[in-house]
Amino acid sequence: MRYELYYWPSIQGRGEFVRLALEEAGADYDDVARRRGAEALMPFLEDKSLARAPFAPPFLKAGKLVIGQTASILLWLAPRHGLVPKAEAARIWAHQLQLTIADWLVEVHDTHHPIGGAFYYEDQKPESARRAAHFTGMRLPKFLGYFERLLAQEKGGWLLGRSLSYADLSLFQVIAGLRYAFPRAMARLEPRHPRVAALHDRAGSRERIAAYLASRRRIPFNQHGIFRHYSELDA
Amino acid sequence: MRYELYYWPSIQGRGEFVRLALEEAGADYDDVARRRGAEALMPFLEDKSLARAPFAPPFLKAGKLVIGQTASILLWLAPRHGLVPKAEAARIWAHQLQLTIADWLVEVHDTHHPIGGAFYYEDQKPESARRAAHFTGMRLPKFLGYFERLLAQEKGGWLLGRSLSYADLSLFQVIAGLRYAFPRAMARLEPRHPRVAALHDRAGSRERIAAYLASRRRIPFNQHGIFRHYSELDA
Repeated sequence: MRYELYYWPSIQGRGEFVRLALEEAGADYDDVARRRGAEALMPFLEDKSLARAPFAPPFLKAGKLVIGQTASILLWLAPRHGLVPKAEAARIWAHQLQLTIADWLVEVHDTHHPIGGAFYYEDQKPESARRAAHFTGMRLPKFLGYFERLLAQEKGGWLLGRSLSYADLSLFQVIAGLRYAFPRAMARLEPRHPRVAALHDRAGSRERIAAYLASRRRIPFNQHGIFRHYSELDA
Repeated sequence: MRYELYYWPSIQGRGEFVRLALEEAGADYDDVARRRGAEALMPFLEDKSLARAPFAPPFLKAGKLVIGQTASILLWLAPRHGLVPKAEAARIWAHQLQLTIADWLVEVHDTHHPIGGAFYYEDQKPESARRAAHFTGMRLPKFLGYFERLLAQEKGGWLLGRSLSYADLSLFQVIAGLRYAFPRAMARLEPRHPRVAALHDRAGSRERIAAYLASRRRIPFNQHGIFRHYSELDA
């Protein structure tokens, strides 16, 4: 089946977690809005007669099924492409990790948008400075420490043990983004979290992921996405 | 099976979405920390040797399985208790709605904690005023409008049509919380969203839910939870 992925065409954002899974799977997919522009998303978001429409991008069209919410897309996609073990306990664990990563991502976003997405960063700079200091000082070490501890308990270097799952790809993406957004904080924290750093490097060097990262399909990090580099926020 | 629910004992919070599902199901469960105090949660959060430990409450213990993340708990629990249809497309849709409600909930929380959970509301009042104005002015109508539109498309008054699902119980809880936290904004907005208001009232009057709400098991809304009433934030 040829999947259709719908997401904003100019940022990695939440869509990137789906892209990475599709790429690792070698799945056939059309990143629709990158080809046709952001207006390709609009029928799904603005057509009031569309039944069971998603609230926001990303969403994945698989035949007649339209699935929204990043974690929900991955929950559906992963078992079809060997990106999660078959056992139910493992699947629910991978999903739980994805949801924790989603929570982490909200906190990253809020470092530069604590007052809300409707205002520019420039209109919430003092608030961002406070929130980012709290993030790099308290929350970032807590999340990194959690995943470091999980990796220390598993044999094999992946979050679910010996085989890569979509949760590993998602953790890769968060670490890549944090290195872009908070290089000073990450340079300070990574030596204390060697397993997380190693997972990033190992996931990023897998054949299909490395090819994807080197391709034009990978949108570079930029100042419009979730991960943004503002030097003044990187304490 | 007797479930064990672990969540902070003094607030409804995220645990309440699980409690409502357990109550509607008539499931046998122990709300552990309400009986034994918050220290009952600590082994799961602080024992560094515990394998695959949750990041944060709530979590549900079902035999040997420990499941964290509210949406993930409900995903696992609902099909075992008839709180979601059997068809895969319906299950993934209910889950997607739950994740959208989870996003909404984060935005509610951030109206009084835009700078982060480590600071008291009193230490982030100006930031909260800005964020809350954006929430009640823009985001709240967007979320309410989305769910109103979904309900208008379904026959039967529930989010998945003719039968109640856990997504309905979660929407009930959000509306109840919003009425407590933002009575003025809700009084203004509810007449434009009659189906959402009707769903709240109908879910709340179901036999088991009504009995639960009237019992001491239901923790009252208070100024420590996600839904808080600060008159100055209710524009």
